[in-house]
Amino acid sequence: MSHDYKFEGWLGKDKESAKGNMVWGEFPHVKPFEETDVDIQITHCGICGSDVHTLSSGWGPTTYPCCVGHEIIGKAVRVGSKVEKGIKVDDRVGVGAQNSSCLKPDCAECSDKLENYCQHIVTTFGDKYPDGSITYGGYGDYHRCPSHFVFKIPGGIASEDAAPMLYGGVTLYSPLVVNGCGPGKKVGIVGVGGLGHFGVLFAKALGADKVVGISRSNAKRDDVLKLGADEYIATSDDKDWATHHARSLDLIISTVSSPGMPLMEYLQLLKVKGTFIQVGAPEDMLPQFSAFAFIAKGVKMGGSMIGSPAQIEAMLKLADERKIKPWINTYPMKDANQAIKDFNDGKPRFRITLVNEKHL
Amino acid sequence: MSHDYKFEGWLGKDKESAKGNMVWGEFPHVKPFEETDVDIQITHCGICGSDVHTLSSGWGPTTYPCCVGHEIIGKAVRVGSKVEKGIKVDDRVGVGAQNSSCLKPDCAECSDKLENYCQHIVTTFGDKYPDGSITYGGYGDYHRCPSHFVFKIPGGIASEDAAPMLYGGVTLYSPLVVNGCGPGKKVGIVGVGGLGHFGVLFAKALGADKVVGISRSNAKRDDVLKLGADEYIATSDDKDWATHHARSLDLIISTVSSPGMPLMEYLQLLKVKGTFIQVGAPEDMLPQFSAFAFIAKGVKMGGSMIGSPAQIEAMLKLADERKIKPWINTYPMKDANQAIKDFNDGKPRFRITLVNEKHL
Repeated sequence: MSHDYKFEGWLGKDKESAKGNMVWGEFPHVKPFEETDVDIQITHCGICGSDVHTLSSGWGPTTYPCCVGHEIIGKAVRVGSKVEKGIKVDDRVGVGAQNSSCLKPDCAECSDKLENYCQHIVTTFGDKYPDGSITYGGYGDYHRCPSHFVFKIPGGIASEDAAPMLYGGVTLYSPLVVNGCGPGKKVGIVGVGGLGHFGVLFAKALGADKVVGISRSNAKRDDVLKLGADEYIATSDDKDWATHHARSLDLIISTVSSPGMPLMEYLQLLKVKGTFIQVGAPEDMLPQFSAFAFIAKGVKMGGSMIGSPAQIEAMLKLADERKIKPWINTYPMKDANQAIKDFNDGKPRFRITLVNEKHL
Repeated sequence: MSHDYKFEGWLGKDKESAKGNMVWGEFPHVKPFEETDVDIQITHCGICGSDVHTLSSGWGPTTYPCCVGHEIIGKAVRVGSKVEKGIKVDDRVGVGAQNSSCLKPDCAECSDKLENYCQHIVTTFGDKYPDGSITYGGYGDYHRCPSHFVFKIPGGIASEDAAPMLYGGVTLYSPLVVNGCGPGKKVGIVGVGGLGHFGVLFAKALGADKVVGISRSNAKRDDVLKLGADEYIATSDDKDWATHHARSLDLIISTVSSPGMPLMEYLQLLKVKGTFIQVGAPEDMLPQFSAFAFIAKGVKMGGSMIGSPAQIEAMLKLADERKIKPWINTYPMKDANQAIKDFNDGKPRFRITLVNEKHL
């Protein structure tokens, strides 16, 4: 197969692009192909809050032009001679939020299968390889990625569903598994949107006794219960919710990224020795709180960033076996700007996947 | 033996008492004796920051008059017919910061041996039993306590050393043990004072590979190394300490209670997946920080409150077997006000025990 395809896609050129003002163009500094790499002809890419935070330089200055998207599915069209996992041309594969890590034996994280916490992580878009080349995400036609971070997609998962699992899915799956979600446990998911809805799905699939969706208003109540949650708390509409549900949950995963979130009240929901894990990253600081909130119940608050390759494989296996079906709205890749606008308006129930129809 | 002794001691009558202005007097609302109780003729009582926070109403309004002190050692002089642990008259016994919990089989915490997190905890001073009687601490002659929270003291531990272990000791021992301190682990203790110096001693005794004392200035460096720490960081004097020692510790226990503490820098010291446990309780809110501090390394921050009876027994056993020797300055009970003044001035290296000489 010839490799004369072009790496091009939707480019953000400044902060305004976050409002749905990306322009189509070629990627200027794509990584040179190495024998450990896979080139992917993109068929699907999920839309994620991280895309907007980056396009708007909300998490710090972005290097423009930037093509975002870290929930990529497509067909392997070029496969180096030294790839891992037996990936072959024509395989349906995916890439999440990470393209590279050092993978050196003396790296504490990489040797411990915690590649997602390697200090030399290269993320899937807007990041730089040691040689100076730049990563470009999945709002486009092709993506190049070292095979350690490319995953074969099990046959039972539709591509539009698999795409958002690779970041959104594993961002919830990882802290659930690491913090003991399973039989005997009661789990809360704060913010039931694109990320959080995966929390409800995976917590149920992992066998939690009870899964509680926690969102601001009652607007999502019916959908969240339909999704599989056992209970729903609307923090703006349910009176005395924190007192009423105090000490009821073993584990809470929070996907909200507003610095105004009622953190002290969320901690109230935890049982003694419970755990609160933050995966949504506010652009500002977290709200202030008292140390007593932790001391009096011996609870912990932590963070979690994406998931390791091993966790992504395990998540895909679980999703395939248990036929986990996320709620996905699809948009054609050509309408990416409209999709971003609708995303910003909170329209999706619950996640958007862009479909690159010319590659289907 | 007659039981006509008087329950009296040093009373704080208002906020000014925290400056060393307590007055000796009788306790007005001592709990009626029950058959599960032990009366203790006090020989020793440690001085703790909690005493000052309470005398000054720093953690909220205190009910005056209040007799503080929750590191009590003495002789059992009256023992009910239904006491636990075979406690007998004349036994040398101790009481820490907790006098009671519900101990009901349907209490999640009590049935899980987490009595220190029971919602019906009654603390050792300034607290109220369900019948309205009040708890009075160990700056006095006698203390009455349900036997579940009274501990026999192993013969190898001197009373002036055992006293501060019952709160200060277990406040560090408990989070160390619960969070895996032991061989292969590198542990930091923030604030090497009365509480923190127990952290250094117990972390070493539990077999941590490396124990790092972390304090503000260099003034304590020699003492902390003499105490057994392998390394010392002075956060005001060592340039770039947070960067220099970044990602070096598995576990940090923080005893400092200043809202101005450099929390973000402490978190920098943690390895990926590391744990930061706060045991010092600031009167104000914690400093603000960014969720990225947690997310980027998958670290956790938690709190821990005293320890359970089972942990206190285990700590005393370890201290006896390993001949753990805290650094104690003793003062006669009659000089309690001077001792409080010296405590407030940061004079002790590292902890003060009051000695009730008339009961020796």
